[in-house]
Amino acid sequence: MAAPRQLINITNKIRKVYQQQVRQLTQVSIAGLPSFVKIVEVGPRDGLQNEKDIVPSKIKVELINKLSESGLPVIEVTSFVSPKWVPQMGDHKEVLAEIQRKPNVVYSALTPNLKGFKSAVESNVSEVAIFGAASESFSKKNINCSIDESIERFRVVTEAAKDRNIPVRGYVSCVMGCPYEGDVQPQKVAEVAKKLYELGCYEISLGDTIGVGTPGLVRELISTVSKQVPVDRLAIHCHDTYGQALANIFAALQMGVSVVDSSVSGLGGCPYAKGASGNVSTEDVVYLMNGLSIKTGVNLPKLIEAGHFISSYLGRPPGSKVAQATKSSL
Amino acid sequence: MAAPRQLINITNKIRKVYQQQVRQLTQVSIAGLPSFVKIVEVGPRDGLQNEKDIVPSKIKVELINKLSESGLPVIEVTSFVSPKWVPQMGDHKEVLAEIQRKPNVVYSALTPNLKGFKSAVESNVSEVAIFGAASESFSKKNINCSIDESIERFRVVTEAAKDRNIPVRGYVSCVMGCPYEGDVQPQKVAEVAKKLYELGCYEISLGDTIGVGTPGLVRELISTVSKQVPVDRLAIHCHDTYGQALANIFAALQMGVSVVDSSVSGLGGCPYAKGASGNVSTEDVVYLMNGLSIKTGVNLPKLIEAGHFISSYLGRPPGSKVAQATKSSL
Repeated sequence: MAAPRQLINITNKIRKVYQQQVRQLTQVSIAGLPSFVKIVEVGPRDGLQNEKDIVPSKIKVELINKLSESGLPVIEVTSFVSPKWVPQMGDHKEVLAEIQRKPNVVYSALTPNLKGFKSAVESNVSEVAIFGAASESFSKKNINCSIDESIERFRVVTEAAKDRNIPVRGYVSCVMGCPYEGDVQPQKVAEVAKKLYELGCYEISLGDTIGVGTPGLVRELISTVSKQVPVDRLAIHCHDTYGQALANIFAALQMGVSVVDSSVSGLGGCPYAKGASGNVSTEDVVYLMNGLSIKTGVNLPKLIEAGHFISSYLGRPPGSKVAQATKSSL
Repeated sequence: MAAPRQLINITNKIRKVYQQQVRQLTQVSIAGLPSFVKIVEVGPRDGLQNEKDIVPSKIKVELINKLSESGLPVIEVTSFVSPKWVPQMGDHKEVLAEIQRKPNVVYSALTPNLKGFKSAVESNVSEVAIFGAASESFSKKNINCSIDESIERFRVVTEAAKDRNIPVRGYVSCVMGCPYEGDVQPQKVAEVAKKLYELGCYEISLGDTIGVGTPGLVRELISTVSKQVPVDRLAIHCHDTYGQALANIFAALQMGVSVVDSSVSGLGGCPYAKGASGNVSTEDVVYLMNGLSIKTGVNLPKLIEAGHFISSYLGRPPGSKVAQATKSSL
């Protein structure tokens, strides 16, 4: 009876190996898309911060209220950075004081240091965010310190946040390329993401800051990073500079990511590259999700209206194709 | 020895079942992307035909020559429709007479009927195309006959083409939605595609004429149509009206499609919907393929140059994000 027993064991082993392969492949196939995607609206902060002319607080407040009305679950409202560096966000207190808060909406703010964090808490934010990078050069040029130094700076913030029970979101920028260094290795992104996760960030947003990524790279990235941070703690933050954002988001969904950052009307983009578009537009992301029968809780016509509101104020056509295509019907 | 033999057989059966499952899943997973994608450039025909002002033949010829130089394998040059209906394509003979033909490039033309086909052959086209629809209303409004009547009309063309050994490409329009009927069933598309395939079309291009599709629908579409027409005979033709084109193309590649239609600088679009963009831009498609390590044979900088040439002539910024983003570096 020795031989059959051995063969049964082999049979079971083969079955296991193949079952695992099937499971892995199923996870990345289209059938495995999430049923709900949380959209993190970054327009008021990441979008508007690059606008040269100061947008009046009143306009920002109206925009944020319209975004709340559309059903977006998270809105990054402002940043608590020194007005010396980012004058556009200098009115953070006023904006947070004047918006009409809806109970189910998370109103967050970027807080690069303890001073900013404290002010943000005084302004009653629901959540804060810290902004790191996967590229040393970008870190130095953007926040004037090395990646390791930035982690130590963030630690002060995350510890203070823990004491007050305030959730912290971590950004990693330049995840698929850096304007100074070119290629960025997924392993490097994974290391930084892991550090932020260990600091206590409940969610890590992977930002393709210069929009150079394509879906194959997204796949490699998520596959590598999710070995360090659970995939349900990851968000994807795409810029549409080369038109690849929605394809990249679709690839990320297939890898199990279910949190997507976007900006109403595609606000944002690099102010130094005229014509180069910035953040992927929330309208186009919601259209994609609707088409895939993925719930977001967002009312698309109301969102489009919010986009038209801010685009009209800025005096330019909306940076969302959905908004452009549906313009006549509104 | 009976038991071990039996178990070996079982082992082999299990292995086979799982291997098949793995194979099927690999086919729809990202790993199963094609290594080469044939890009069919439709800018000079599908793109320019909607331009209100007549573009001089000389400009068209220069554009087509530049497109040839970029390495594109197929260029749809013009259509042999009555100038009464499409005045912009009235110079088909001149254009085909004056372009500098490269040996490896296929120069094709749309030929809706036998008269058009004969003229196209006289103008020495390498290939012709016929243009059907998956929606009765669109067929009636666009070519003034029912779908069945259009098939009979096309039969005359495909039979004449067979006699002369000229390959015929078939278009099916409105594959994911119709401006008059709304939703279009994949089964309807499959029926029309099958009829065109049976007529002798060597390739069937599935056109999302109004750009409403999303990747889940693409998947359903390709899955349904490929039961009637082999997937390696299918092409995807996306419009970027709602910004979904690249995500849709990516989904089609995952389903095994390896032929993609696109238009340099995103030329085209519906002339009645201002702001609504049209064909997906070839530049953005090539960028996607490069990122996925899929060969196309296209030189991206040369292609971008061709796009800038025609956009400058038309007096508008290029409708390609890649072209916009790289503008400063050219």
